[in-house]
Amino acid sequence: MNGAESLLRTLVDAGLQVCFANPGTTEMPLVRALEQVPELRTVLCLFEGVCTGAADGYARMADKPGLTLLHLGPGFANGIAYLHDARRARSAIVNLIGDHATWHLAADAPLTSDIESLARPVSVWVRRSQSADDLAADAAEAVSVAATKPGQIATLIVPHDYQLAPASGAVTPRTAKLPTQINDETVATVVDALRRDTPKALFLGGYALRERGLQAAARIAAVTGCKLICETFPTRWERGVGTPILERLPYFPEPAIAALAPYQTIVLAGAKSPVSFFGYPGVPSYFISPEQQQVVLAKPEDDVVNALQAVAEALGAPPVATNSELQIPPRPTGKLTPEAFSAAVACVLPENAIVMDESNTSAGPFCVLSQSAPRHSYLTQPGGAIGLGLPCATGAALACPDRPVINLQADGSGMYTVQALWTQARENLNVKNIICNNRSYRILGLEMLRAGVKEFSPQAQSLMSLASPALDWVHLAQGMGVSAVRVETAEDLTRELERALATPGPCLLEAIL
Amino acid sequence: MNGAESLLRTLVDAGLQVCFANPGTTEMPLVRALEQVPELRTVLCLFEGVCTGAADGYARMADKPGLTLLHLGPGFANGIAYLHDARRARSAIVNLIGDHATWHLAADAPLTSDIESLARPVSVWVRRSQSADDLAADAAEAVSVAATKPGQIATLIVPHDYQLAPASGAVTPRTAKLPTQINDETVATVVDALRRDTPKALFLGGYALRERGLQAAARIAAVTGCKLICETFPTRWERGVGTPILERLPYFPEPAIAALAPYQTIVLAGAKSPVSFFGYPGVPSYFISPEQQQVVLAKPEDDVVNALQAVAEALGAPPVATNSELQIPPRPTGKLTPEAFSAAVACVLPENAIVMDESNTSAGPFCVLSQSAPRHSYLTQPGGAIGLGLPCATGAALACPDRPVINLQADGSGMYTVQALWTQARENLNVKNIICNNRSYRILGLEMLRAGVKEFSPQAQSLMSLASPALDWVHLAQGMGVSAVRVETAEDLTRELERALATPGPCLLEAIL
Repeated sequence: MNGAESLLRTLVDAGLQVCFANPGTTEMPLVRALEQVPELRTVLCLFEGVCTGAADGYARMADKPGLTLLHLGPGFANGIAYLHDARRARSAIVNLIGDHATWHLAADAPLTSDIESLARPVSVWVRRSQSADDLAADAAEAVSVAATKPGQIATLIVPHDYQLAPASGAVTPRTAKLPTQINDETVATVVDALRRDTPKALFLGGYALRERGLQAAARIAAVTGCKLICETFPTRWERGVGTPILERLPYFPEPAIAALAPYQTIVLAGAKSPVSFFGYPGVPSYFISPEQQQVVLAKPEDDVVNALQAVAEALGAPPVATNSELQIPPRPTGKLTPEAFSAAVACVLPENAIVMDESNTSAGPFCVLSQSAPRHSYLTQPGGAIGLGLPCATGAALACPDRPVINLQADGSGMYTVQALWTQARENLNVKNIICNNRSYRILGLEMLRAGVKEFSPQAQSLMSLASPALDWVHLAQGMGVSAVRVETAEDLTRELERALATPGPCLLEAIL
Repeated sequence: MNGAESLLRTLVDAGLQVCFANPGTTEMPLVRALEQVPELRTVLCLFEGVCTGAADGYARMADKPGLTLLHLGPGFANGIAYLHDARRARSAIVNLIGDHATWHLAADAPLTSDIESLARPVSVWVRRSQSADDLAADAAEAVSVAATKPGQIATLIVPHDYQLAPASGAVTPRTAKLPTQINDETVATVVDALRRDTPKALFLGGYALRERGLQAAARIAAVTGCKLICETFPTRWERGVGTPILERLPYFPEPAIAALAPYQTIVLAGAKSPVSFFGYPGVPSYFISPEQQQVVLAKPEDDVVNALQAVAEALGAPPVATNSELQIPPRPTGKLTPEAFSAAVACVLPENAIVMDESNTSAGPFCVLSQSAPRHSYLTQPGGAIGLGLPCATGAALACPDRPVINLQADGSGMYTVQALWTQARENLNVKNIICNNRSYRILGLEMLRAGVKEFSPQAQSLMSLASPALDWVHLAQGMGVSAVRVETAEDLTRELERALATPGPCLLEAIL
């Protein structure tokens, strides 16, 4: 057994099952070793950003680390943007990067670069293996670091010569560190705060938005009357009929501050204190003012689910049924406005769907319209690096082959990682991509308006418009083997989405907004 | 005047003319300031790797810095791979990265990251402006650093609040540092070495491959009998009829070592001592053996052109005419092999073309077949980060609107930056993209064979094949507004390329190899 095989065997023994790969020459011993480790499914992606974004989507839905195999510094660099998103999502990812043979580094060959400097900003753990025998142990440690709940990014650099050299074998997986438990004192403080007779809110993020966290939050809300609010960009939000209705914090700072303003006490549960996505002159960075009382029940890395349950118990809150009546919006008609677009998706949303939402400005009303729709998982982009949607939906579909994935995809963002369509076709993944084609980076126009610009200069206009030439997403999808259709009305979108959901495999609907 | 305008005005005063941009919210003041600086042409790219690769191609052909405008850490990260290539090409690039307002950084908003750590591996100079008034001075310094011959990468991080704040105005451009001149002693040493009656070679790179460097090299070769060899991946090689015929060093180490072995003395002129792209067990990193005499005339950052001219003068070498007879290969027929593909391009190559070659395994014979073709500039990828071709050709076309650009593009690599086609359409650039569609990462198959693998496992095979589904480049191009046609024979390719060259604007030929 060589280093490469001992490494892969260790990863598989630790429960990893899927590897999103774009290998090159320095990873060839790992590619060869795959033959000895057939349990590991390798998924080829035609661009590394697809690998890392898919690993994120996979990790969120599989609740185990996503694995990538990337080529040297430049290959890794192509994946950084979606590792940035994954870091903000607290997703569990193990990156394997092949590097030159150790004896070849001094030659400063063309692809040599400072991989560590590139990896550190997006990795909680970066290691360069120091011998062939270390590969397995390093891999075991990488998995345990990555799997530390909610999830972390571990990056392992494996020199070519160590992959090739003999190694003693796989290493037994380590147990991942458990998240910090919340102590009784903190629970008591939160209980006191929630018992006060003033307006209060529970601000939920991370694992608090999974089934068990939400049930506990609903119990707390039922006995204390606190409002339930969730992060603007949740990693994974279990929602729809049977789950409590939460208010999603708005994106822009003024409405977000207004949404939180009524509450004298705000308890943070698995979420950081909410801040503005960007800094605007005269607008505070933090949405919760110094006059409001802010109580931390659980930080994002703490065990927020147990903490919420402990609070519910301490409050003597009984189990509750909330949002128990299925409600779907009527089938929309006419022009594809954001409202009609959102209603079209919500009214045909199938039970157990996974919705990846990178619609940006095009599907704002979707969350409200689908709050009592059939149960679904809802993924967003907590890190703001655009282009996550197509890869993340791809990874989610691999994690959950029995669940339909609907990817609400802004056009400008979608172009960043359009290569993901090919992987969806190759793996025949059940992803329905709906491109929101408004032929612009519309968010930038909104930002200009916010800045008080009433008329855009031709120079500014030209940096926001995707209209000349218009992107033809039907052709793009067909070029990568994905069947596609253009829709221009709400009726068309509803009908074509229904049809697509009835047919397994990937497809693309280009919705002209 | 605010900081943003003072910065842009300074850049324009320093001679910069084109900005490859994908801005976001933190760059909006710069976007607004463009109205006041209409001399700066902004070119929107739909992915940051297109911005940086285009800046590289522009810099190589314009002989002035290419400029990018990128959004925070993740936007910059998407451009790193082609900055890696540009660093190896010693191209002059100024990157502008907008960052959060300084007062907003502490909030650790979603897009906050360690930009400096990402920028350093690809930048010789990284600075974060410390006030609005510093923006102009920092920009002036960035240009002078970037323009230091042959070229360097300077990255300037400009916080949002400093872009907005009042500033005192533009700053007079600084003079770029001149490259190091070679002293008389070194020239004398080289002259001595070349006068010896043993087999010798002049190994040329960087600016030695421009017109004046080549003329001096031809004079030296004529009087000393030295062989002229050039780097495997030249940044910009002026070639064709009237320029001396050089041997291009082979890619794989064994033939490269064999090509250099006959020469007892090798003079390095503007090139580093050649090394293997990857380290292979039992094969040395360095191609020139310790038994051979290696003499450095000029390092890549030195003034190699003056040095070659000084050597020619010291040798009393008169001007020479070399390679003076136009020779083009006959029109090829039949199946599109690498030979037929190369001949098809060489036989219709127009005068003054720019050829970007990222054909990888598909057009090996092109350089020999075109050595006496009409004069052309030949660009390659010195850094090995694949996907440079489409962006680099885009930037070259912007630098030289009067010259046709032919981009020989491998399919797997082309998918990395396929978004460049949209920018070509939008700017109506005269780029003829020829996709070498062999439906595989063929180089990886060659690497496996080199490693002694005779039969590929299904796992390995699946990571090298782009056949399922087959990419349809005609559809992809049409999706981005570029007209396209598929060709399957040498006759078709020759005819369609001739037709394309007669029609201004971008097009794509999908050549099935």
